[in-house]
Amino acid sequence: MAPKYAPSLRSRLAPLLLCLQTGLILLSAFYFEIKETDDRKASINFYPEFQDVNAMVILGFGFLCTFLVRYGFSGSGFNLLVAVVATQWGIILNGIKFWYYTGKIRVDLKSLVVAEMYTASALISIGAVLGKTNPVQLTFIALLEVSGFVLNEWLLQTLLKVRPLNSIMLLHVFGALFGVMLTWILNRKGSEQGFEKEKFDRKSGLFSMLGTLFLWMFWPSFNSVLVDDWTPWKKLQAVGSTYLALAVSAVTAAGVSVLCNPKGKLNLIQLQSCILAGGVAVGVSISAIHQPWEAMTIGFTAAIISTTGFNYLKKHMLLVFECHDTCAILSTHGLPGLLGWLAKLALHIKDCDDHNVAIRFAVFHICTLFITIIISLIMGILTGLLLKWDFWRPPQNKKCFDDQAFWEFPNLAERK
Amino acid sequence: MAPKYAPSLRSRLAPLLLCLQTGLILLSAFYFEIKETDDRKASINFYPEFQDVNAMVILGFGFLCTFLVRYGFSGSGFNLLVAVVATQWGIILNGIKFWYYTGKIRVDLKSLVVAEMYTASALISIGAVLGKTNPVQLTFIALLEVSGFVLNEWLLQTLLKVRPLNSIMLLHVFGALFGVMLTWILNRKGSEQGFEKEKFDRKSGLFSMLGTLFLWMFWPSFNSVLVDDWTPWKKLQAVGSTYLALAVSAVTAAGVSVLCNPKGKLNLIQLQSCILAGGVAVGVSISAIHQPWEAMTIGFTAAIISTTGFNYLKKHMLLVFECHDTCAILSTHGLPGLLGWLAKLALHIKDCDDHNVAIRFAVFHICTLFITIIISLIMGILTGLLLKWDFWRPPQNKKCFDDQAFWEFPNLAERK
Amino acid sequence: MAPKYAPSLRSRLAPLLLCLQTGLILLSAFYFEIKETDDRKASINFYPEFQDVNAMVILGFGFLCTFLVRYGFSGSGFNLLVAVVATQWGIILNGIKFWYYTGKIRVDLKSLVVAEMYTASALISIGAVLGKTNPVQLTFIALLEVSGFVLNEWLLQTLLKVRPLNSIMLLHVFGALFGVMLTWILNRKGSEQGFEKEKFDRKSGLFSMLGTLFLWMFWPSFNSVLVDDWTPWKKLQAVGSTYLALAVSAVTAAGVSVLCNPKGKLNLIQLQSCILAGGVAVGVSISAIHQPWEAMTIGFTAAIISTTGFNYLKKHMLLVFECHDTCAILSTHGLPGLLGWLAKLALHIKDCDDHNVAIRFAVFHICTLFITIIISLIMGILTGLLLKWDFWRPPQNKKCFDDQAFWEFPNLAERK
Repeated sequence: MAPKYAPSLRSRLAPLLLCLQTGLILLSAFYFEIKETDDRKASINFYPEFQDVNAMVILGFGFLCTFLVRYGFSGSGFNLLVAVVATQWGIILNGIKFWYYTGKIRVDLKSLVVAEMYTASALISIGAVLGKTNPVQLTFIALLEVSGFVLNEWLLQTLLKVRPLNSIMLLHVFGALFGVMLTWILNRKGSEQGFEKEKFDRKSGLFSMLGTLFLWMFWPSFNSVLVDDWTPWKKLQAVGSTYLALAVSAVTAAGVSVLCNPKGKLNLIQLQSCILAGGVAVGVSISAIHQPWEAMTIGFTAAIISTTGFNYLKKHMLLVFECHDTCAILSTHGLPGLLGWLAKLALHIKDCDDHNVAIRFAVFHICTLFITIIISLIMGILTGLLLKWDFWRPPQNKKCFDDQAFWEFPNLAERK
Repeated sequence: MAPKYAPSLRSRLAPLLLCLQTGLILLSAFYFEIKETDDRKASINFYPEFQDVNAMVILGFGFLCTFLVRYGFSGSGFNLLVAVVATQWGIILNGIKFWYYTGKIRVDLKSLVVAEMYTASALISIGAVLGKTNPVQLTFIALLEVSGFVLNEWLLQTLLKVRPLNSIMLLHVFGALFGVMLTWILNRKGSEQGFEKEKFDRKSGLFSMLGTLFLWMFWPSFNSVLVDDWTPWKKLQAVGSTYLALAVSAVTAAGVSVLCNPKGKLNLIQLQSCILAGGVAVGVSISAIHQPWEAMTIGFTAAIISTTGFNYLKKHMLLVFECHDTCAILSTHGLPGLLGWLAKLALHIKDCDDHNVAIRFAVFHICTLFITIIISLIMGILTGLLLKWDFWRPPQNKKCFDDQAFWEFPNLAERK
Repeated sequence: MAPKYAPSLRSRLAPLLLCLQTGLILLSAFYFEIKETDDRKASINFYPEFQDVNAMVILGFGFLCTFLVRYGFSGSGFNLLVAVVATQWGIILNGIKFWYYTGKIRVDLKSLVVAEMYTASALISIGAVLGKTNPVQLTFIALLEVSGFVLNEWLLQTLLKVRPLNSIMLLHVFGALFGVMLTWILNRKGSEQGFEKEKFDRKSGLFSMLGTLFLWMFWPSFNSVLVDDWTPWKKLQAVGSTYLALAVSAVTAAGVSVLCNPKGKLNLIQLQSCILAGGVAVGVSISAIHQPWEAMTIGFTAAIISTTGFNYLKKHMLLVFECHDTCAILSTHGLPGLLGWLAKLALHIKDCDDHNVAIRFAVFHICTLFITIIISLIMGILTGLLLKWDFWRPPQNKKCFDDQAFWEFPNLAERK
């Protein structure tokens, strides 16, 4: 007979978090510095944009994950936990470059923003295994995903001289593929029949709507924050393009969603995923977009692909590949990310007069994607194999998608 | 016997949204541009204020509409849908002027903010018919309301040379009257007895509290965003006045609310409407307010009018005029808007030394209001007549205020 | 037999609020001004930071208080009421200094921010008596707490020449001790057995998570907003230090929380309190922190103290001292505040080369804390004694933690 309670994490989570945090503090004592920079004004003027990205990572992703009716505490709480671990880890990895030259890791708003973007990539991956893992596993996923993503960035920048803005925006593709591999390796027997508690209700749907709207509203900041400061109108273009793409996505996703449904009804969780598709796709292709209609067309296509993907792909992935993707990250981030990559290729080639330059760009661009896919798949598989180990005490199938495995409910007896 | 299910929208909503969006993309391909402007810095510095207004429109209005216990998905979801349609439409209408001269419609943060304000006006109107219409009708309302409002603005600016800031702030009056006409024309038999599902509960009240607080917090941005940039202290004045008026409103609304209630209790939904009254009234009169006490007195009076209106007017409107106003927009936006108009008249006359100038201003100011009222009433009636058509498949009375008419609940059987 | 209904507040709350507000408007008519200042640009550039603090006070504290399952309307509604009363009162008290010299009280974004910080201090105190008081009492608490805090600030600045930034950051210590005294004096018989309705559920826990995350996200603004504008990199340091401390707090609080729990589970309400401890402690010592590791170590220690305090202190305070602290403000704000004070002392002494200077600083620093503690205890006791009077009609024990004492539920009969 299966045990009635989920395994206790006391002997796993507590030492992991406390040791990890102590280690990070020790590292910071030797290597961190917050120092006066040349462009004084620039750094603190950056603050509102940093706050927007911060709100997306902490509140947006956090509440997006509360749609599961019995998993709201874990959704928002573990998201915070993972985000702060990943951000600290991201600051260190991102600072290695500076450390190599100066012996110090600089902490300023830019390094925080970059670290939060790494974090976003880890949070996307976690969407695929949400509800089926415990916080110990989530912490490891975050650490390894960020490491993998930084490795990928370093390879792209070293081998192919990809510009930082372009390589970091591949986070959607990287995160999605990493997450899909992870959930494939960690697949549980019995997941084809679905989990008993994997459902939403009126109120949990609204909580995740809140998270979605936060992501939706601040996505223009996410896409524009790393665009160069000394070309303010490029930043404006990034903001405008992202806003338009998101708006088009929202309308299109609703339209396609109604069209695909036999009863002509909308599905809230599907809509929440798909209205963001435009932001993802435009983000990946942001440096090639010069006209509003380009952004709008990308948003339109992204929403169609994402909605169709959500409707058909999610179920087939589960049945055919035994790959259970809780938040449908493949259709929310993966496919629109690939579309964005394709759009960037098309737009660049369109703008090229010279045939040779176009071909050279295409090869370069295909290599970029190829490396990203390889690294994400390999890192996802490795992470999955590490976490399959029973030592980490994953919850039983019956305790999946259930806060009671991890959280105290002192008044449970009195509640229905 | 009445049919058990709400009519399917598959053949109405899907083509409408997809065709509309395709049309907008085509328009954008020919006419939109995001271009470097002279005042480079100004545009992107505008970004935090744009975000505040954006948050009000998407999150504030969206969650304000979630107070109905079974209509939360529709309240927040359709709000987003309508907002993005109306904003795209608003960008086009607002750009016609530039298009006339340059052949292009400029998309920048200012045009986005103006378009979002048009959207706010449409969302106010929709408050009156919330729960009694389907998304097809809501889309038409948004398109027609924004068109009517832009027509009104054009008339005011052309005939009376009203300044843009002053004409756009009439959005509260325009939206409220448009909405009231609309709901009067669309009146359903049986609405006097009230709708079964038109009620709130502990949690839905908190969701709408969230939306209200977003509106309350960012209202200073809403009122100050279009004040000229090169007079920063005027902007400061607008922010300070709005904040004080909102604070006074909140205290006064609570006081009057307790006073009017026989048991001395507060009503959450009433309070949510009335704490915003000060922001509305000060918004309309923003260009005439020079002293903090003026703003505070306007806030005080607005809260009293709004609270009393909510208590007595709403019920009488329904019984006497057969006009069912779901969100009580007449007392939230209509009456405080008119009060703001009156306050502006009084403040201007007080500041005038010359008798003749004062009379001339009064005539001009009365004409402004007169035109706004006429256009809003006519447009409201026309829109209402168009939407009365059964072709749009409005939900039956029994399916009003119910998400199940439009949204899938896959796990319904398992839920209580 | 006890009466079935909570006493009506009609004859207490309505006159109090309306008279108070009228009085404030009259005061404003004579003394308020919004005036062009020398540093024009500075004032309105301050706006995003003001909005962050505003969001913390209105949304953060408001939704933090919604964790009680039947007290959500009161938690968020009364928070708004108290906040706007306290802010208006704070503007006046903060302006007395200017009034003394110029005859006018200046209203600008800085005076609003300072007033909101006074308000935060009052809201901390209210956390201790949440659910056991009525809004009339809350209004008085807010007025008296702000008065006491301003008195304390004035004493510190006059007697000890403490800098404004340092004296205002003691708000956590002041608010916590004031609140603890208050709840000690207002102790109700029977509170040792706990209150029937003092519990949380799945959804109310998420609402308070939302408030917590707002506080967590914008805490860097709270700590940096009053740092001098002409040293942008100091501001950057304040932001970076606070962010790191909060991140460390979150990880550490989760670790310690799991460690202390026999079943290895997390407690959401405890976690919500303790992840903020780092922000509090760093806030108090912000002017002495120069290295990231200092901030991180303070965050680490604060989280340990706060979590341990929440686990053991809260229960003992109730049983031994008959002091029922609803939101555990002593361990959320009190202890981390004292830790911050201690950290500042230690950091200053560490940086001192001269032995004499160090001793002089220590004496000065101890006096600062001593005065703050004395004033907060005395004011707390006085306020408590005033509010013990039955004239204010506090709710009966059975109606504690229950919205129904103050709010209308029109549809109650239809709900379960």
